[in-house]
Amino acid sequence: MAQTRIRLGMVGGGNDAFIGGVHRIAARIDDHYELVAGALSSTPEKSRASGEALGLPRIYDDFKQMAIREARLKNGIEAVAIVTPNHVHYQAAREFLKRGIHVICDKPLTSTLADAKKLVKAAEASDALFVLTHNYTGYPMVRQAREMVAAGEIGKVRVVQVEYPQDWLTVAQDIKQAEWRTDPARSGAGGSTGDIGTHAYNLACFITGLTATELAADLQAFVSGRELDDNAHVMLRFDGGARGMLWSSQVAPGNENALRIRVYGEKGGLEWAQEDPNYLWHTPFGEPKRLITRGGAGAGAAAARVSRIPPGHPEGYLEGFANIYTEAAHAIHAHRKGDPIPPEVVFPTVQDGLKGVEFVDACVRSSARNAAWVKL
Amino acid sequence: MAQTRIRLGMVGGGNDAFIGGVHRIAARIDDHYELVAGALSSTPEKSRASGEALGLPRIYDDFKQMAIREARLKNGIEAVAIVTPNHVHYQAAREFLKRGIHVICDKPLTSTLADAKKLVKAAEASDALFVLTHNYTGYPMVRQAREMVAAGEIGKVRVVQVEYPQDWLTVAQDIKQAEWRTDPARSGAGGSTGDIGTHAYNLACFITGLTATELAADLQAFVSGRELDDNAHVMLRFDGGARGMLWSSQVAPGNENALRIRVYGEKGGLEWAQEDPNYLWHTPFGEPKRLITRGGAGAGAAAARVSRIPPGHPEGYLEGFANIYTEAAHAIHAHRKGDPIPPEVVFPTVQDGLKGVEFVDACVRSSARNAAWVKL
Amino acid sequence: MAQTRIRLGMVGGGNDAFIGGVHRIAARIDDHYELVAGALSSTPEKSRASGEALGLPRIYDDFKQMAIREARLKNGIEAVAIVTPNHVHYQAAREFLKRGIHVICDKPLTSTLADAKKLVKAAEASDALFVLTHNYTGYPMVRQAREMVAAGEIGKVRVVQVEYPQDWLTVAQDIKQAEWRTDPARSGAGGSTGDIGTHAYNLACFITGLTATELAADLQAFVSGRELDDNAHVMLRFDGGARGMLWSSQVAPGNENALRIRVYGEKGGLEWAQEDPNYLWHTPFGEPKRLITRGGAGAGAAAARVSRIPPGHPEGYLEGFANIYTEAAHAIHAHRKGDPIPPEVVFPTVQDGLKGVEFVDACVRSSARNAAWVKL
Amino acid sequence: MAQTRIRLGMVGGGNDAFIGGVHRIAARIDDHYELVAGALSSTPEKSRASGEALGLPRIYDDFKQMAIREARLKNGIEAVAIVTPNHVHYQAAREFLKRGIHVICDKPLTSTLADAKKLVKAAEASDALFVLTHNYTGYPMVRQAREMVAAGEIGKVRVVQVEYPQDWLTVAQDIKQAEWRTDPARSGAGGSTGDIGTHAYNLACFITGLTATELAADLQAFVSGRELDDNAHVMLRFDGGARGMLWSSQVAPGNENALRIRVYGEKGGLEWAQEDPNYLWHTPFGEPKRLITRGGAGAGAAAARVSRIPPGHPEGYLEGFANIYTEAAHAIHAHRKGDPIPPEVVFPTVQDGLKGVEFVDACVRSSARNAAWVKL
Repeated sequence: MAQTRIRLGMVGGGNDAFIGGVHRIAARIDDHYELVAGALSSTPEKSRASGEALGLPRIYDDFKQMAIREARLKNGIEAVAIVTPNHVHYQAAREFLKRGIHVICDKPLTSTLADAKKLVKAAEASDALFVLTHNYTGYPMVRQAREMVAAGEIGKVRVVQVEYPQDWLTVAQDIKQAEWRTDPARSGAGGSTGDIGTHAYNLACFITGLTATELAADLQAFVSGRELDDNAHVMLRFDGGARGMLWSSQVAPGNENALRIRVYGEKGGLEWAQEDPNYLWHTPFGEPKRLITRGGAGAGAAAARVSRIPPGHPEGYLEGFANIYTEAAHAIHAHRKGDPIPPEVVFPTVQDGLKGVEFVDACVRSSARNAAWVKL
Repeated sequence: MAQTRIRLGMVGGGNDAFIGGVHRIAARIDDHYELVAGALSSTPEKSRASGEALGLPRIYDDFKQMAIREARLKNGIEAVAIVTPNHVHYQAAREFLKRGIHVICDKPLTSTLADAKKLVKAAEASDALFVLTHNYTGYPMVRQAREMVAAGEIGKVRVVQVEYPQDWLTVAQDIKQAEWRTDPARSGAGGSTGDIGTHAYNLACFITGLTATELAADLQAFVSGRELDDNAHVMLRFDGGARGMLWSSQVAPGNENALRIRVYGEKGGLEWAQEDPNYLWHTPFGEPKRLITRGGAGAGAAAARVSRIPPGHPEGYLEGFANIYTEAAHAIHAHRKGDPIPPEVVFPTVQDGLKGVEFVDACVRSSARNAAWVKL
Repeated sequence: MAQTRIRLGMVGGGNDAFIGGVHRIAARIDDHYELVAGALSSTPEKSRASGEALGLPRIYDDFKQMAIREARLKNGIEAVAIVTPNHVHYQAAREFLKRGIHVICDKPLTSTLADAKKLVKAAEASDALFVLTHNYTGYPMVRQAREMVAAGEIGKVRVVQVEYPQDWLTVAQDIKQAEWRTDPARSGAGGSTGDIGTHAYNLACFITGLTATELAADLQAFVSGRELDDNAHVMLRFDGGARGMLWSSQVAPGNENALRIRVYGEKGGLEWAQEDPNYLWHTPFGEPKRLITRGGAGAGAAAARVSRIPPGHPEGYLEGFANIYTEAAHAIHAHRKGDPIPPEVVFPTVQDGLKGVEFVDACVRSSARNAAWVKL
Repeated sequence: MAQTRIRLGMVGGGNDAFIGGVHRIAARIDDHYELVAGALSSTPEKSRASGEALGLPRIYDDFKQMAIREARLKNGIEAVAIVTPNHVHYQAAREFLKRGIHVICDKPLTSTLADAKKLVKAAEASDALFVLTHNYTGYPMVRQAREMVAAGEIGKVRVVQVEYPQDWLTVAQDIKQAEWRTDPARSGAGGSTGDIGTHAYNLACFITGLTATELAADLQAFVSGRELDDNAHVMLRFDGGARGMLWSSQVAPGNENALRIRVYGEKGGLEWAQEDPNYLWHTPFGEPKRLITRGGAGAGAAAARVSRIPPGHPEGYLEGFANIYTEAAHAIHAHRKGDPIPPEVVFPTVQDGLKGVEFVDACVRSSARNAAWVKL
């Protein structure tokens, strides 16, 4: 922490945007960043008002202007957080990547598969780092689960059940959060699949270490007039023979952000739920179910690395999100010195982002073909 | 209860059979039956030994002998419980039905679709009643859920998530319970689909009142050498546009009998889990989630009809099972008097049984065609 | 079971009494008893009407008449269930005990300490057995907890937290169940302490094997005009140095029958809750918490003896109650043969009943002295 | 937030101190503070090393030096966080209070009642603010509960059950965290009562708005050689007639930080548990139990004020702690302008701290007199 804090800029995240505030808190929690510049909205006026409210030293009209000028400054930003609606991700990220500024980008990676592929190329062509905030991978007990699967504690994985139900779009909404998420032009082809299904899909791959090879998806838009799916039923096949089910829904009353995963292998099972994130259930086959708590007995090094406080004092969503920022900081600090990223530092990459967009694309194509299997 | 108890016989259910003992307790709980005859095993010796252990007045070598002789007795059995492995159900039931003896039969209805269709005909041709022990429909809070859906409390149903995971077949087992359940000749074409998937499917239809129109199923036998599915992923479509997912598994460590259903409609959601059966979660959209308890505030007449004791004193599996027997008793008492079955008396019928066998058949056919949609 | 069923009579338990029906079901579940006689109410007319509704062969005007006549019959009752309000227990039990008829008596033992002591003498003077239905000791996972404590799995016990909150008397009630339970003449000196506190106290002693030596109690009657306590806060001291807290309440909204116990020793902790009775939580100090399920991995012989069905299929209150009846049956069968009661057969005795009445008496005396410590 | 950040110093909280890190994160989360000075340890060397590791601009040898010099600086600290062991609180706080520097102090207020009373005088004599970090009062659902009680939603309070069990001192520990907490010279006269019992006591008073008038306490030190209580059973009486039980323990295996409160009134009940802090259970008497979630339906303005993110994304311990810092910031901002503290701004005060120390003192006195009632 005595290292100089990383100078951070932000694109998007103006006054009334939920996710921008989350990124700013996440960047602050472990004190690795200093937010010094922003192009916080799609209009210069709003950007300026939002930046002033935050007391930002440097406020820009748009992201391109910010990228150009910051790149020229002696102490310009070293990293930028991109927290706009999905369709802006690619264009914004490109401007910073090509100037060597690290990008921390919200998910899904882009609104179209074409953009996602171009963004992969842009990231690969750049010396800068690209970090995707699939924030649920930052939860300590998700790390714990991943470590246990990798260590063979549940044996070869057979079955993956993952779901992310919400209820906020049960009826038509005209709030801002709902507006762009149900608009194909800004969100991309996926509704629930893009907004939350990608999280579930990423989590399944992150914990199991498996790659999905094909899927069959039955998408629905239950609310009249809605253009994008608000419920998705997906069957998955993974390399090595594991099978999975994925359910994402925005029309399931009684669910807030009920992301939940269950993984079953030849020797045991694991269960984790985002709404109670400090707990991981582990059943070695033939033994009683065990409750592993963050920081408690049975929790290993991977979870401890990303924990701050003792067990029984819950860490939540913001701490998990902060873990992604802190992993990014570790990587940026290594980059500063020209060192490789330490192997224990783990964060979602542009490739993970591409996989997420491919997942949405495959869901939409499968569903259009009556839920036929399509390759991933 | 002052009515004469119903004279009951039993086919199958010898010494070491789990489900026979369950049926006997279920028949006793509300004191509507008197078990007076049995053909309890596939061999005369075992049948006799088991019958003597139970103190049965009349013990037979086989079910046919029992059917013939009991039908001739002045006070012969009025009803028979059939609790054999699946492949015997049809032949046994036929013998009793054609002699006017009511049949209470374990599920699934039969091991083959052909047998199921013949059994439907036999039941329709008989004056006797046919009751299928899809016992989970006997739980008070399942009745409560069904009553609430029917009353429109969650609005038009959109999404049904139902699952029945177990873990006892995670590794190969050579115990008797496992043996016939993994043998196609005795179980039928379905493994987990037949043994527990039919329960899940029946429960979904029972609570929602919907009819499934087609399904796509991806079945697996994960344990080497196993001939029948031990894990099934199924997507469902219902009349009226609702969509569903069904998961049955016998290889999910940490799950004992984790039957669970969630139903989401335009106005609210319901959740119920068999392992905590005295609770029903209800979320009216936009209001806090509510916990309705058996006998507690918010529980209605349908649940009260099948409850015995106050809330907070849990009723379990045997009581739920007993409710099917008691519903059957109500129907038999009406039949004695020549009355119609009262409308509040609800039990699974031979038609429900046929639907279960059709479900298994459809799963197997779909899976053989790479999870293509097949009609139900 | 092939043994002749035990001929059972019943005192109390007429038409609208909750607990009489419970006893009858409990007696039926494992088929050890045949109910053949009754004096079911305090008036001959009600007794007759109730007995006829149950189809009882022999109906009596009152318990004394029943005791005298049944004792003379060749095949008179061998055991009697006493399920009246508390103040009748002693007089009724005495009549049967002195005629060598086994008594299965509801709790608390009596309404006064004087009666309790007399009943102990009557039981000791009789060859007949006396079984008290502290039914919660019949739950398999309570047996499991007791076995684990006895085996030293949590080390020497230090702390016992036990509670039994309800909410049904939050406001004044004029239903029959409430009427006699709030009347000192029929219930005795304890309100919540007598009706449910005795259960909690008995459970704490049963599981830990400890004897309480003194207590300090602060009793309240929160509802205006109520004569007996509806809330009790009690501190306990046990032999060997363990300390405990006991809370009973009938005015705690949101609690149905929330009996719950936690026991902590030098090496581990145990937690059990009556409303989810198939689970026992066990934490060996320094290891993850474990969920032991009835019939599942980790459950031992003491629980298996009193289980009927596989894990994951919940057994409830009636099954636990039935276990007391079945233990009584084992004891009666041994008595028939002149054998000692097998050591694994466990049921609450008249001595346990005396301890319960002493507990109530001590609570009332302590509270009258501003919660001073009183010896037990 | 556009307001100038508050310049903050810290006393205590060097390298290996748990709670210092918590305070620093809490101060950062909402970006109201800038940590610019510190006397982080009891030795100058450690203080310097810790301060450098944190990159602090100004590092002092001890708190007195810091108070004197910062008070003279033009842009010296406006507030100081005191996070030392308990016995240092009074002396440190006094130095800052008398120089007009606001104090944010960890709990319990002091290690002795004499110190507590002197600190109250020092705070009253100062223009500076005094904030005590009874952090659990910062949880949104604790605010929600308090708001509901105040609004009469559960009626007049009758019963309060509060507990704070831990297990980390089940066996003797020689880690630093344990060392000073079990040393009377540094902790004060209370062991579990001081460290966690004060939290439970404060929470009970905070939510109910009641004042405790007397208590009876039975304290134990179960671990051989331990000088301070590691388990406390306390009965409470409140003004207005409510009764309570409080249990604190450090020897209850399976409990991490299981602070839990239940409040029952004439019209309903509330339940909250620190380990699942985003949920509040509310039962209006005679209606189903309701689950109110942070930010969800049924949550009111008091909770919303201190929430950052939508429901279903858990906020945890650090966010609750941050809420105390943010309330302090609101008060300090008002103080800057000479305005009164807005009525909706709520934080624990020096008076609350005094009550906590009085609670510990009363527990120790009561226990020494065999749990006699002592006035508060």
